[in-house]
Amino acid sequence: MTRLAIDYDDVAAAHRRLEGIAHHTPVLHSTTADASTGARLYFKAEHLQRVGAFKFRGGYNAVSLLGEAQKRAGVIAFSSGNHAQAIALSARLHGTRAVIVMPEDAPEIKIAATRGYGAEVVLYDRYTQDREALGRALAEAEGLALIPPYNHPHVMAGQGTAAKELFDDVGELDTLFVPLGGGGLLSGCATVARARYPGCRIIGVEPEAGNDAQQSLRRGEIVSIATPHTIADGAQTPALGDLTFPVIRERVDDIVTVSDARLVEAMAFMASRLKQIIEPTGCLGVAAAFQAGEKLAGHRVGVMLSGGNIDLPRFAALVHGR
Amino acid sequence: MTRLAIDYDDVAAAHRRLEGIAHHTPVLHSTTADASTGARLYFKAEHLQRVGAFKFRGGYNAVSLLGEAQKRAGVIAFSSGNHAQAIALSARLHGTRAVIVMPEDAPEIKIAATRGYGAEVVLYDRYTQDREALGRALAEAEGLALIPPYNHPHVMAGQGTAAKELFDDVGELDTLFVPLGGGGLLSGCATVARARYPGCRIIGVEPEAGNDAQQSLRRGEIVSIATPHTIADGAQTPALGDLTFPVIRERVDDIVTVSDARLVEAMAFMASRLKQIIEPTGCLGVAAAFQAGEKLAGHRVGVMLSGGNIDLPRFAALVHGR
Repeated sequence: MTRLAIDYDDVAAAHRRLEGIAHHTPVLHSTTADASTGARLYFKAEHLQRVGAFKFRGGYNAVSLLGEAQKRAGVIAFSSGNHAQAIALSARLHGTRAVIVMPEDAPEIKIAATRGYGAEVVLYDRYTQDREALGRALAEAEGLALIPPYNHPHVMAGQGTAAKELFDDVGELDTLFVPLGGGGLLSGCATVARARYPGCRIIGVEPEAGNDAQQSLRRGEIVSIATPHTIADGAQTPALGDLTFPVIRERVDDIVTVSDARLVEAMAFMASRLKQIIEPTGCLGVAAAFQAGEKLAGHRVGVMLSGGNIDLPRFAALVHGR
Repeated sequence: MTRLAIDYDDVAAAHRRLEGIAHHTPVLHSTTADASTGARLYFKAEHLQRVGAFKFRGGYNAVSLLGEAQKRAGVIAFSSGNHAQAIALSARLHGTRAVIVMPEDAPEIKIAATRGYGAEVVLYDRYTQDREALGRALAEAEGLALIPPYNHPHVMAGQGTAAKELFDDVGELDTLFVPLGGGGLLSGCATVARARYPGCRIIGVEPEAGNDAQQSLRRGEIVSIATPHTIADGAQTPALGDLTFPVIRERVDDIVTVSDARLVEAMAFMASRLKQIIEPTGCLGVAAAFQAGEKLAGHRVGVMLSGGNIDLPRFAALVHGR
């Protein structure tokens, strides 16, 4: 049996590294959401994490674990947005250089925030250019350590600390919904859930337009697709990673998809009832929980709110355009 | 010396009554807000309270303390909105009738929510009709207990539980900013702060357009003004109450005002950085803290976020109209 990229101890170690640096984010409740599903829903508010998304956890953990010489030389990352800010801030906290390769159609708020953390931003076209190749070329030319957004054990372990905190705060859950792009958050969270509460049903949620992970889980091998067109820009990934997929295959119970229309409904609900501004990707778990509806009756259900970085005009347009 | 309407023990008793019924709301942080003031800011998230505002605390406490016969007969309240929902839900939780007298220009979301909790809603014109007279006439005609929005010891004690929770969670504070309309929340919070941390500076915040409380504190007597025109609809009160004013005079250090423009800035900040949708009145404390700016450097500062009930279109218009 091949050893998987991470185990619970890796997440626990990451959690110690993040203590006092990452926010211990709150768990939110909604009587209305509970009433509509018959479940008790625990929303883990990672949109209130530093940089506005769980990505800070993995990014900081990965930068922490670089060798001293590499820490001095600097880091590079390619990202649809939140990972970019995570690496930019993590580099700044370690007093080192960060170069970030971002898609040119990334939300303006994310590009501005990344520059605001002192990172150098290099833009590319996500529909025609290969960000990985571009990132690797830059890394080699300038001696920078490439920190990928999900397919890295230290990143995966860091993301898992979000689930560890949730279980630490609320105890056992029957079901846990986790947004899914490249699988960093899902693999980390599933590792925690499987170790702590083996009976907890772990469900990854991806956009209907890009169900590569669902196909991968069914076929038992990584399926690649064209970059999907969805409002969930954080989940516009063509494939799972060769490190995240084996963890997901082993530890995740199911992968479901939700439509963009359901994402918008979930965003509007979170805004009007929970007063929270959540980006579309961040609402994947919410939308899936509402889609499951009465199937969750009587259950204790965790829902990862993964990020909140969306321009306010775009937020207003999506929510009011319904 | 005249005894004041409430003391710390009243708040502590209210807190026991609310346990497991009101939400223990989280305390939010923002590295950006801290950096801009040099202070450590603790945002008490009462917009995440049941009914979306701290008002549930006082309303539920007051309904709980009615005699059994009165509980069976029902209650009546007049309110610019959040108190209405608070009484409607409190009545439903006690299995009794609620009649709510609301201004006809109250936010639609508040009228709908009040009806949604099963209350009967009676509308009036806040610029020409006397809501107190209307409320008293209805109460007498139908044998209902009138629960005023702030000028009542049980309401004041209930509101104070928000500050008690904040201190329970974060310990001593140098300064506490509290939104101020009729003074229910401020009198309750000041009572807690004065008893627990006598050195904590307690600052009430009201809209510039309606600084009756500031005038009252300076003159040493209740000053009444015409209903102020401000976006802070929860603070459109003409005067403090004869129960809240003595508590405020005795226990509050200062009352400051903020402009509507500052409120909008605060709302936009809370939306873009903290991902929170806060109604204008709910941002009074935030705006005052930012206005104080560097004067708070090095301090531990509590900020009450009092409510989040605002129609999303109005929220978007205010925040984008800047």
